[in-house]
Amino acid sequence: MSISNQIFAKHCNKKSLEPGEFVECDIDLVMVHEQLGGRISPEFRKLGLDRIWDPSKVFYILDHWVPPPDIKAAKMHQIANKFAKDYNIKWNMGQNQGICHQVLPEKGFSRPGMLIVGSDSHTTTYGAFNCIGTGIGATDVSIIFSLGKLWFKIPEVQRIEFKGKLGSKVMGKDVVLQLLKDFHTDGAIYEAFEFGGLGLENLSISARMTIANMSVEMGAKCGVFESDKLLENWLKSHPSVENDFNKKFNKPIFPTKDAQYKKISNYDLNEIPPLVAKPFSPDNVIPVEELGTIEIDEAFLGSCTNGRMEDLRVAAKIIQGKKIPSSVKFIIIPASREIYLQALNEGLIEILIQAGGVVEYPSCGPCIGGHLGVLGPNEICVSSSNRNFKGRMGDPTSKSYLASPAVVAASALKGYITIPEKDIWK
Amino acid sequence: MSISNQIFAKHCNKKSLEPGEFVECDIDLVMVHEQLGGRISPEFRKLGLDRIWDPSKVFYILDHWVPPPDIKAAKMHQIANKFAKDYNIKWNMGQNQGICHQVLPEKGFSRPGMLIVGSDSHTTTYGAFNCIGTGIGATDVSIIFSLGKLWFKIPEVQRIEFKGKLGSKVMGKDVVLQLLKDFHTDGAIYEAFEFGGLGLENLSISARMTIANMSVEMGAKCGVFESDKLLENWLKSHPSVENDFNKKFNKPIFPTKDAQYKKISNYDLNEIPPLVAKPFSPDNVIPVEELGTIEIDEAFLGSCTNGRMEDLRVAAKIIQGKKIPSSVKFIIIPASREIYLQALNEGLIEILIQAGGVVEYPSCGPCIGGHLGVLGPNEICVSSSNRNFKGRMGDPTSKSYLASPAVVAASALKGYITIPEKDIWK
Repeated sequence: MSISNQIFAKHCNKKSLEPGEFVECDIDLVMVHEQLGGRISPEFRKLGLDRIWDPSKVFYILDHWVPPPDIKAAKMHQIANKFAKDYNIKWNMGQNQGICHQVLPEKGFSRPGMLIVGSDSHTTTYGAFNCIGTGIGATDVSIIFSLGKLWFKIPEVQRIEFKGKLGSKVMGKDVVLQLLKDFHTDGAIYEAFEFGGLGLENLSISARMTIANMSVEMGAKCGVFESDKLLENWLKSHPSVENDFNKKFNKPIFPTKDAQYKKISNYDLNEIPPLVAKPFSPDNVIPVEELGTIEIDEAFLGSCTNGRMEDLRVAAKIIQGKKIPSSVKFIIIPASREIYLQALNEGLIEILIQAGGVVEYPSCGPCIGGHLGVLGPNEICVSSSNRNFKGRMGDPTSKSYLASPAVVAASALKGYITIPEKDIWK
Repeated sequence: MSISNQIFAKHCNKKSLEPGEFVECDIDLVMVHEQLGGRISPEFRKLGLDRIWDPSKVFYILDHWVPPPDIKAAKMHQIANKFAKDYNIKWNMGQNQGICHQVLPEKGFSRPGMLIVGSDSHTTTYGAFNCIGTGIGATDVSIIFSLGKLWFKIPEVQRIEFKGKLGSKVMGKDVVLQLLKDFHTDGAIYEAFEFGGLGLENLSISARMTIANMSVEMGAKCGVFESDKLLENWLKSHPSVENDFNKKFNKPIFPTKDAQYKKISNYDLNEIPPLVAKPFSPDNVIPVEELGTIEIDEAFLGSCTNGRMEDLRVAAKIIQGKKIPSSVKFIIIPASREIYLQALNEGLIEILIQAGGVVEYPSCGPCIGGHLGVLGPNEICVSSSNRNFKGRMGDPTSKSYLASPAVVAASALKGYITIPEKDIWK
């Protein structure tokens, strides 16, 4: 069985599963963010229940609009906080920890074999940790809050085999942009990706999170990575001190020999160039070197896709000692408080500010056009985030190009979209 | 003559001046912020001129809504930037330097004897530097852009004599809150404050900026400090490398013996307690110790009034090694990039974040309810900023209490408005 089928099977007490089969699964953890103060709270309260099924299986965080950029966001947070208090949600992270998809793994809540759902499409990120993470809507959250269960249609599985090693200017983001180039946004609708192969050892956990994160851009229900030494070490260094998910979920899941896949695709990491997704779709992908000269108004380094230490280190390496042109708004938002503090200690924050960058406290920021760098009419942005739909980051006439942190930093420096001059890994 | 009358006289080529007299003065420097993209640009363009009088006397900066929290702000910045480019404004600071009233002095643009106007009411801040700073509207800026001159009614002068030394838990903010308690918001309308006396040597430049800044809350046209050694040293350490204002304005102005004052008021700094201005007016001032228990949702340390090194150092001293309760949003925004970098190097940013604070990149932030901590319904905030009018920081039902950075930090820690436990200056 594939990894995801094993996880689904375990959570609905079945021995075997067929693609297309409908099952009802126990949920290990529900992640909710501001949505709790938006649609979820009224939906759940409609049910008239005085408790939620298991408050110790809910992870709640404010991240999209923190601190509130307007009264509307402040109200949403108030409703969410009241709900969390009324129903004793155990893992209430508050408003200063960072972006959900970064904080949850960091604090040890995503472990191998888990079935995690979240009120956010990029919940697929947790697939990097050999578990299932998938996004659900407000009504589904309400159902889980009452019953602890949710129905799933068992997805067909697309196996991706990696080999080789990333090039000297290539990051995990380019890998998932390559997948988007090949699969397009409708290439894996309600399917599961399973990532493995010998190349895995050359993909950092950070790169895997980026790839799992954007799996949903191809329509995938989840994108699950095989376990390996790298993941085992990462899990050891993020021991989930307070919760006991590490005790419950401590066995890596590997596909069995009889695993059935819809297709197995092979990717040689060496062959992937720096890529960019042009407006207005994440699958509108071409090599950066074929893009021509696209001048930029803004460069955004951050989001759940690319706001990690690896991303900041690469950007700082490219930027160090240089100056961003004044025509460029270079906005850097580390994905979590932990990352912010580590970047502070490594001197990265200072390097980025000295070069002219604007470093904000962890939040989703301009990725969703929420605040901290919303684009004006006709403005052009190169962004490390995950979506470049029309109006996603601001005015409908603005344009976002999605690229790796390396390309974002190099572009910020030059004022147009370009690749770094030197090896980013040396 | 009083200091302000000497400055006015010099700028309209008169030997003597009477209060109430109307004069036309040459302007040394105009400060403009986002207003340039708001009312100023359309007002000036109406005049149909192809140039502004002297582009080397205009200081332009984006600070209120940076990076843009919404499309409206992004548009305003676009218009402002286009104007600055079209009319060759020389001192274009861009969007990553910090708050106007901090950046302008830091970069050496406010020197003794200058007559500076700005499209912001807190332009009075520059009075700390022995010069006149005063706020004007969009139409007046347009007139100066065409003619380089502006009319003034010569204000009567209120002399404030300081003696003694600030108490162990008292800051410059408490001094100006004491003035507000005594003068109220209508106590100095279209008058000039002149600050001097033996106590001056015990008031840091930072404290003076706070006092000059909030002089306008009493209706004052300006609040001018006498010069002294402290100021001379400060000016030397901020040498205005690029501009030549230091060459043109290098003589401190002292009042002459025959100076006429409407009134001379004496303040013993030792006698001022930690104060707080209750909603909804900056003159609704009482001692913090008489306030009773006011629980807070937010504590804001920042703004042109109190976002300087002294303020951050005091806050960090109070906070160090402790934890802010999760019920409090503690938002810290250094007033400028220079301050941010210095605070970074002194370890203050780390101390504040470790305690649970949210440190944002320099901007006006929630002071004007613009972004980065806008208050929701019924929320209560203790703020180091300058105004607590109804709805100023967010929802009309929210309430802001104005206090010193020491009180803000101590309150953030306790969850209710209070004074620090220990000496903040030792």
